[in-house]
Amino acid sequence: MKPKTKVVIIGAGFGGITLAKKLSKKYFDVLIIDRNNFHNFQPLMYQVATGGLEPYSIAYPIRRIFREYRNVSFRMAEVVSVETTSKKVITSIGELSYDVLVVATGSESNYFKFESIKNQLLTLKTIPDALNIRSYIFQNLEKALYHSREEVPEILNVAIVGGGPAGVEMAGAIAEMKKYVIPRDFPELNTQYMNINLYEAGDRLMKTMSEQASSKTLQYLQELGVTVFLNARVNGYDGSELTLENGNAFHTDTVLWTAGVKGAPIAGLGENCLMGGNRVMVDAFNQVKEHEHVFAIGDVAGQVTEETPRGLPMLAPVAQQQAKHLAKNLKNQVLGKPMERFSYKDKGTMATIGRKKAVVDLPKFKFQGSFAWVVWMLVHILSLVGFRNKFIAFLDWMSNYLTYDRPLGLIIRQFKREND
Amino acid sequence: MKPKTKVVIIGAGFGGITLAKKLSKKYFDVLIIDRNNFHNFQPLMYQVATGGLEPYSIAYPIRRIFREYRNVSFRMAEVVSVETTSKKVITSIGELSYDVLVVATGSESNYFKFESIKNQLLTLKTIPDALNIRSYIFQNLEKALYHSREEVPEILNVAIVGGGPAGVEMAGAIAEMKKYVIPRDFPELNTQYMNINLYEAGDRLMKTMSEQASSKTLQYLQELGVTVFLNARVNGYDGSELTLENGNAFHTDTVLWTAGVKGAPIAGLGENCLMGGNRVMVDAFNQVKEHEHVFAIGDVAGQVTEETPRGLPMLAPVAQQQAKHLAKNLKNQVLGKPMERFSYKDKGTMATIGRKKAVVDLPKFKFQGSFAWVVWMLVHILSLVGFRNKFIAFLDWMSNYLTYDRPLGLIIRQFKREND
Repeated sequence: MKPKTKVVIIGAGFGGITLAKKLSKKYFDVLIIDRNNFHNFQPLMYQVATGGLEPYSIAYPIRRIFREYRNVSFRMAEVVSVETTSKKVITSIGELSYDVLVVATGSESNYFKFESIKNQLLTLKTIPDALNIRSYIFQNLEKALYHSREEVPEILNVAIVGGGPAGVEMAGAIAEMKKYVIPRDFPELNTQYMNINLYEAGDRLMKTMSEQASSKTLQYLQELGVTVFLNARVNGYDGSELTLENGNAFHTDTVLWTAGVKGAPIAGLGENCLMGGNRVMVDAFNQVKEHEHVFAIGDVAGQVTEETPRGLPMLAPVAQQQAKHLAKNLKNQVLGKPMERFSYKDKGTMATIGRKKAVVDLPKFKFQGSFAWVVWMLVHILSLVGFRNKFIAFLDWMSNYLTYDRPLGLIIRQFKREND
Repeated sequence: MKPKTKVVIIGAGFGGITLAKKLSKKYFDVLIIDRNNFHNFQPLMYQVATGGLEPYSIAYPIRRIFREYRNVSFRMAEVVSVETTSKKVITSIGELSYDVLVVATGSESNYFKFESIKNQLLTLKTIPDALNIRSYIFQNLEKALYHSREEVPEILNVAIVGGGPAGVEMAGAIAEMKKYVIPRDFPELNTQYMNINLYEAGDRLMKTMSEQASSKTLQYLQELGVTVFLNARVNGYDGSELTLENGNAFHTDTVLWTAGVKGAPIAGLGENCLMGGNRVMVDAFNQVKEHEHVFAIGDVAGQVTEETPRGLPMLAPVAQQQAKHLAKNLKNQVLGKPMERFSYKDKGTMATIGRKKAVVDLPKFKFQGSFAWVVWMLVHILSLVGFRNKFIAFLDWMSNYLTYDRPLGLIIRQFKREND
C-alpha cells in the first residue's frame, strides 16, 4: 500500500479547520499547527470586546474538534519559516516535514502609515485583543469617576476608525452599552460626555455591501447616537488627540482601529510570491506560485481572477469553500486525476449594528431590520463550533435581549496602552 | 435630621459585600473599595484553575450587586494606607474620608520561609492566579509532546504543597483531568509519566475537619491516583527539583503552593494592632485595638477568644456572620445603644475531592461520599451570587458530570514563571 500523504496545515482558522476535517482519512495524515490551542469564531469577536459574550462562547479547543479524527494531529507552535526545497517547516518546537503544505495563516491588522503608533491604538483580531478592549473601556468608566469635569470627555469618548463590518459592529455595541448599561451600573456618570465617533475614509459605510445596506447602517448608527464621519481620513494620534486630514480633532483616550487587514504570510516563500495586501499569490487551484507542494487558502491567499483583480474578499465563507475544494483537489492529485479550478459562490453577507438592527445582502434579495437581525442571530449561532458553545451563546443573547443588559464587564487583567 | 454616618469598607469579599448589603439605608452612606471591579466566589477558584468553571461563573460585578442599593457606592482603587487621626483612607485614586472604617481586606498566600522563591510557585488566591495555573497545565501538556521521553515526567508531574481544602480540591481535580480528559485530548501522551504528589507537613489532611473526614479524604485521593505524603516538610525548590526535609526529591515544573494564608492588613494601623498570621487584632465587637472608629471583619480580623487563641478560622461563614453582626452593632452605636459581643456559630465545613467524593462535617453529623457531594454542590450553587451565575455553573457541572469532560482548556494568555 502506498504511504499516506503528509499534509501540514499552518493555521486553525476557518480554512485550516475545514480542510483538516475534509481530507480523506484513507490518503492523508494531517498535522495542524497554530500558535493558540483553540479555534475562534472571529465574526463574534466584537461581542467579547463589549462584554456580550465570554471568550469560551466563541472559542473551542482544537484538540477537541479533532478528537474523533484519527488521521489529524495538532501541535501548538509558532512558525518561524518554511524551507520548500527540503519540505520542512521551521517552528518554535522544531522542524516538521511535509509532503504538502497548506498556508492558512489568515490576516492581521493593517495600520498602513500608522504602524509606528500602533501601540496607542486598540485593535480586534485576537481574544486577548478583545479582552484588552473590554478591560480598557470598563477601566475608563471607573477612571472617569475620580477626574474633573473637564477631563471626563477625553476619558469616555470613543473613536472608531474604519466603517467596515468590524468598525460598525463595535460602534453599535458600544452605543448600546452607553444607552442601556452604563446608566444603570454608573449612575454617577453623565453619559452625555461620552461621544462615539466613527471615521470612514470612503464615501459610505460597509462598502463591500449594497448601497441599501450602507444607508441603513448609517441610519441605525445615527439612531443609536453614533456620530459618523464619511470621507474622513485620519492624520495622526498622540495618545489623547485624534487629528483628521481636514484639520478637525477629537479628544479621546480610546481609538479602535478597524481600518484594514492584510495577509499574514509565513517567511521563506520568497518576495515574488507576495502581492498587494501582503497576500500569497495563488492560482485557481490555490497553489502558490513557484512552489508545487505549497497551497494557500483563506485570507492569506490572494486569488486573482478577472472579476477580482485584488484577490477574493477576506471572508470566512471564502476560506471554507477553498478548503473544501482543496481537499478534493489533493485527493485528485493522489489518485492521478487532474485538479479542478476553484470558483467562489457568494451566498451573501450580513452585519448587525444593534438590537433588531441588522443588514443582510443575499444575491437576489436584500433586507434590513428586525427580521435581518433574527436571521443574523440564527446563522451565527448555528455556525458556532460545538453544541455547548451554541447553547451558552444562545442563553447569553436571550438574557441580553430580555434585560437590555450586558452580562458582565469583569476587569480580570488590567490593560494599559504602551507609555500610559 | 442627623447626617448619615459615612462607612468606608475596604474589600469586596464575603465580609465587605455582606456588610454593605446589611447596613441600614436610613443611617448609613456606604462606600466600598476594591482593587477589582468584581466580587469572586473564592471557594470555587480551584474549579477555574482546572477548567471546570469559567471566571464569569464565579465572579460578579460589584456595581451590579449594588444596583438597587441607593446608599452604596463603589470605587475601584488600591488602598495605600489609612490615617486614623484625620479619618482618611489614602488610595490610588485620592483621599477618601470616613466616619467609620471597616477593613475587610481578606488574606493572601503565606509563603513562610519560601518568600524569596515565590515566583517559582503557583498559587491560587485570585482569578488571574487561577487562569495562570490553567494555562500552565495545558501549556505543559502541549510541551510534553515535543520533548524526549526523559524530560516528560518533569514537565507533566505536579506537586501540591499543603493538605488543606485548597490543596486537596486541586489535587482531586487534577487527578480527574489526568484520568478522564487528558487521555482523550492528548492520546499521544502517556499519562503514566504524570505523577501527582501532595505534601502535607502535619500528620493528617484537612486538619480543621474531623478525623473521619481526614481519613476519607486520604482514601479518595489515593483512589484517584494522588500520592499523599504526610509529615512531609518541603525544604526547597529550584524551579525543577522539589526537595523535602527528609532528603527525598521530586522532579517537577509545577508546584502548587496551598500551604497557608495570612492576613492582608492595610498600612497605617500600627504594628501593635497586628497579631500572629499578620491579622488585625479585634475585640468581641470587631473593633480594632486603639482605633475607635475602625473595625475589621473576615480573614484579616484576628478575633481572639478563649476557645480560639489564634483567632477564628479564615472561612467565608465567619466573615459573613461578623458582617451581619457588625451591621447591627453600627446601628446600635448610631442609636446610642450598647454594642453586642460577636460569637461564631459553626454550621459545619465541607470539601469535595472529586466526582461523588466529598466530605461533610456538620456539628452533629458527619458523612462522606455521593450524598456529601450532592450536598456540597447544592450549597455551593445556591451560594453563588446572581441567578445567571448559578444557572451557568449548574449547566457546566451537569455537562461535566454527564460527559466526564472538563469543558475547555483555552490557553488565552500564555503564562511563564519568572526566569523561565
